Amino acid sequence: MTEHGLELVTRDHKQTDTVIAVSPSVAIGNRDVCIIAGPCAVESESQIVELAHVLRAAGATILRGGAFKPRTSPYTFPGLGTKGLTSLRRAGDETGLPVVTEVMDVGSVEEVEEHADILQIGSRNMQNYPLLRRVGQCVKPVLLKRGIAATLWEWLSSAEYIANGGNLEIILCERGIRGFDPATRNLFDVTAVPAVKRLTHLPVIADPSHGTGDRTLVPPMALAAVAAGADAVMVEVHTHPDNALSDGPQSIEPAVFEELVKRLRLVASAVGRSVLQATKPVHSP
Amino acid sequence: MTEHGLELVTRDHKQTDTVIAVSPSVAIGNRDVCIIAGPCAVESESQIVELAHVLRAAGATILRGGAFKPRTSPYTFPGLGTKGLTSLRRAGDETGLPVVTEVMDVGSVEEVEEHADILQIGSRNMQNYPLLRRVGQCVKPVLLKRGIAATLWEWLSSAEYIANGGNLEIILCERGIRGFDPATRNLFDVTAVPAVKRLTHLPVIADPSHGTGDRTLVPPMALAAVAAGADAVMVEVHTHPDNALSDGPQSIEPAVFEELVKRLRLVASAVGRSVLQATKPVHSP
Amino acid sequence: MTEHGLELVTRDHKQTDTVIAVSPSVAIGNRDVCIIAGPCAVESESQIVELAHVLRAAGATILRGGAFKPRTSPYTFPGLGTKGLTSLRRAGDETGLPVVTEVMDVGSVEEVEEHADILQIGSRNMQNYPLLRRVGQCVKPVLLKRGIAATLWEWLSSAEYIANGGNLEIILCERGIRGFDPATRNLFDVTAVPAVKRLTHLPVIADPSHGTGDRTLVPPMALAAVAAGADAVMVEVHTHPDNALSDGPQSIEPAVFEELVKRLRLVASAVGRSVLQATKPVHSP
Amino acid sequence: MTEHGLELVTRDHKQTDTVIAVSPSVAIGNRDVCIIAGPCAVESESQIVELAHVLRAAGATILRGGAFKPRTSPYTFPGLGTKGLTSLRRAGDETGLPVVTEVMDVGSVEEVEEHADILQIGSRNMQNYPLLRRVGQCVKPVLLKRGIAATLWEWLSSAEYIANGGNLEIILCERGIRGFDPATRNLFDVTAVPAVKRLTHLPVIADPSHGTGDRTLVPPMALAAVAAGADAVMVEVHTHPDNALSDGPQSIEPAVFEELVKRLRLVASAVGRSVLQATKPVHSP
Repeated sequence: MTEHGLELVTRDHKQTDTVIAVSPSVAIGNRDVCIIAGPCAVESESQIVELAHVLRAAGATILRGGAFKPRTSPYTFPGLGTKGLTSLRRAGDETGLPVVTEVMDVGSVEEVEEHADILQIGSRNMQNYPLLRRVGQCVKPVLLKRGIAATLWEWLSSAEYIANGGNLEIILCERGIRGFDPATRNLFDVTAVPAVKRLTHLPVIADPSHGTGDRTLVPPMALAAVAAGADAVMVEVHTHPDNALSDGPQSIEPAVFEELVKRLRLVASAVGRSVLQATKPVHSP
Repeated sequence: MTEHGLELVTRDHKQTDTVIAVSPSVAIGNRDVCIIAGPCAVESESQIVELAHVLRAAGATILRGGAFKPRTSPYTFPGLGTKGLTSLRRAGDETGLPVVTEVMDVGSVEEVEEHADILQIGSRNMQNYPLLRRVGQCVKPVLLKRGIAATLWEWLSSAEYIANGGNLEIILCERGIRGFDPATRNLFDVTAVPAVKRLTHLPVIADPSHGTGDRTLVPPMALAAVAAGADAVMVEVHTHPDNALSDGPQSIEPAVFEELVKRLRLVASAVGRSVLQATKPVHSP
Repeated sequence: MTEHGLELVTRDHKQTDTVIAVSPSVAIGNRDVCIIAGPCAVESESQIVELAHVLRAAGATILRGGAFKPRTSPYTFPGLGTKGLTSLRRAGDETGLPVVTEVMDVGSVEEVEEHADILQIGSRNMQNYPLLRRVGQCVKPVLLKRGIAATLWEWLSSAEYIANGGNLEIILCERGIRGFDPATRNLFDVTAVPAVKRLTHLPVIADPSHGTGDRTLVPPMALAAVAAGADAVMVEVHTHPDNALSDGPQSIEPAVFEELVKRLRLVASAVGRSVLQATKPVHSP
Repeated sequence: MTEHGLELVTRDHKQTDTVIAVSPSVAIGNRDVCIIAGPCAVESESQIVELAHVLRAAGATILRGGAFKPRTSPYTFPGLGTKGLTSLRRAGDETGLPVVTEVMDVGSVEEVEEHADILQIGSRNMQNYPLLRRVGQCVKPVLLKRGIAATLWEWLSSAEYIANGGNLEIILCERGIRGFDPATRNLFDVTAVPAVKRLTHLPVIADPSHGTGDRTLVPPMALAAVAAGADAVMVEVHTHPDNALSDGPQSIEPAVFEELVKRLRLVASAVGRSVLQATKPVHSP
């Protein structure tokens, strides 16, 4: 054990980088940088299916979309729930893209694991220990977002809960911490990417959409994250951001996303990596 | 609704202070300041029962003690669980002190509500929405700790989740936020007490033990909290702090607690209040 | 030297509390709590003289007022400069109250020292080392405000610069640090008072006006500061806060100040101290 | 004027990017990214001259080196002063590299301006208004570091002081802000680069050495800063970092620097820019 009381997730325990197979053709943590994209929330089946095709064509390798949404206010859109989950699954199946979605409570883990390829633990639940223990029993990978004011060691301690339950397929995701400047929604801690990678063998990815909360800052900060060593970037894309049911201000349009993917390829190459491309043929209907 | 999307918990909705009856003889939110004391964790039945007698004699009006403990590391003492709960209840019954203890997940709410007089939602779970909705259905009061980096409006939004579920008996508890100075464990935001009281009609209390993380700072900051208008203070007391199974560094000894209560009475009086005294006779065995 | 490279200002160097004589009848750091009051800025001679009489009658023991004002924008009122300084001096002489005012640059130290009884180093200049070295050569006491994001050790290191220059008459002043919640202008770190007092023998005071930035929070937080052990409180008072040339939102009216002084006496007494009263007879004109 | 009371430094005042000519062959703010490198402090003439040649050969376009050093403790190396200044100048002259160095007080501005090509205002002096006004009268460009807890608008307000004095040649430099995680010395706010560029026409650069305080994090974060749009990066390089008189832990070795420059060229190219190369022939002795 380290001085911080950790064991399984540290470099002391395992020196080499952990590579997590998300699907037969998609892995996170190797030389290839993944691009995870999708709407904040699944708003309808047609929305997510159509967008998934667009995103895949533009270069996304994993599809994201919220079905169960944690919302600060009880009076805002909480997601479509089970309906959102099955719609997301269908969008993934149609495009061949693995899907990631958030699970908010112990009682929903089984259902979410049935439909998703990666289970996301959101920032607000980073220290929800019963939930961490529960996804520690899953066979699917877990994407663990950093808490809004979590130190690197606290973040790793939460990962250790999952690992301790038996699931070592954990992807850490920096998504912005609390800052003092109202100029941006959160303070995107890009340095956390290389800093936590020194401590752990787990893959580390970055979410510049929540990280900045501002669509014009998403492209430069996605590039910065890859330059700093992120194993994947996760960005929110919406066909009509201004009409999005949640997180519109931080969602980019598909055309901007397409341009961003091109730049990401160049930056990944500049740091000795490449961007993973969706190679699996899309089944014809 | 306010500009922040809140309704039930704001002063706009209800101008007068809410007073919450915890037991026939104990209420929070009126002229009387309550003193909540006890160990971080219930370590054994004899520990909590003996300590409860000492605390009651010294002036405590509510007994605290953790049965289910959220711990940053999966390898540290997680509390005694159900055994801790029944021991705490027995200590409360023997002394006539109402008891408060934390509930960490939806599945334990029923059991905790059966044994406790107040259900505590910890800082890490301030935005655990399924849990907030669940305690919103309870008939017992809920003590909602402020999240480690929660703004006042986010804190109130979490209270709104509980109120929206039907339970308006909510006590807000400031317990220290994340700061930049390693000189103290947390940054105890005493100003939050009068600042949030302007926005809400709910009672607001303060926990200088977690707030400072340092036993020598607990007495002055408990006094400061009452001077600033706190409706109660919650302090961790342990007979042998250096042997405590958790939070020893921030626990004070019974003799220090006794001295503190005397000072609290003087400060409460200086700001036009008094300290509630346990008046209910202790039943003889 | 301590592990932090400090010497003169630490308790290791000197165990007993330092008491600083500001005038024949006013000292800071002993059993008596001082009350420092005045406008943010001296706006005219009649303003400061009249207000000084009012404040003295209400219980102030030291008069504050800015002549050289550090302002975030170059287009706002920078203070009256020399004229403000002589007006402040006259107000002090007429009422028998010692005066404290800020000095912003090395070139003004001589002039400010000639007129003031205490030289204030503002928060923005806490690490202006040439200025610290210069006031280290003064014979008048220095009031050193904490930097907006200074740790306790950084604050003491700045005090050490002054002490190292030969001037050990240093008063530390907590005035709010940067926080993440826009609900208040700053985050008033009351805990810093007892926390830094453990490390240093110097007196520690608190400024709830800048600390909170909000006049309705000034009274409760002034009381909290004294309850926590502050050797003095410094509050901004203005006859017509809404017309103040600077810091109006955080200035209280004289009637509120008078009421506050009464409460401060009760709280000081509750923690075993008293509030110093201006005893020196005011000379008749 | 904007809502924040600014005028000259905003995009409202001037839409197009300001390009600042530092020397006949070096400009900051156009398509070319500059690389500023050098030791934290000038330690001797031979050190800085020899290092300058190495850095120029490796790709540096501007030489940095401290002569007057702001140090938290009065007992640590304060820089060589005038001797350091003339040594830095000589290193610049020998290599043809323009030089940047810090000025800490009004009284030294004339001397520093005589020897330096860019005057640096350090983080601790970002709100030292007499100093800002003084460099506002200089004809040389000013590099304004962001204060440790400055918002973007406060940073720009300080730039406005300089501009208001008549000097519009201002380079903004992000250098890390105060964070809550002791894992890194500061919190390098890379997002501030594109975020402040939206508000101002001035060039914006980044200092990952102070930003992270950790030499292993400097290369990835330098790359991230350029990916995010920085007009230059400033890195501390030392031949023997472990023997450096200041900031050794964050200084990289020349070989690491050389490798970094190669990567920076690739990343700059990936975002549609190039890295400026020192083209002026070095005079033979």
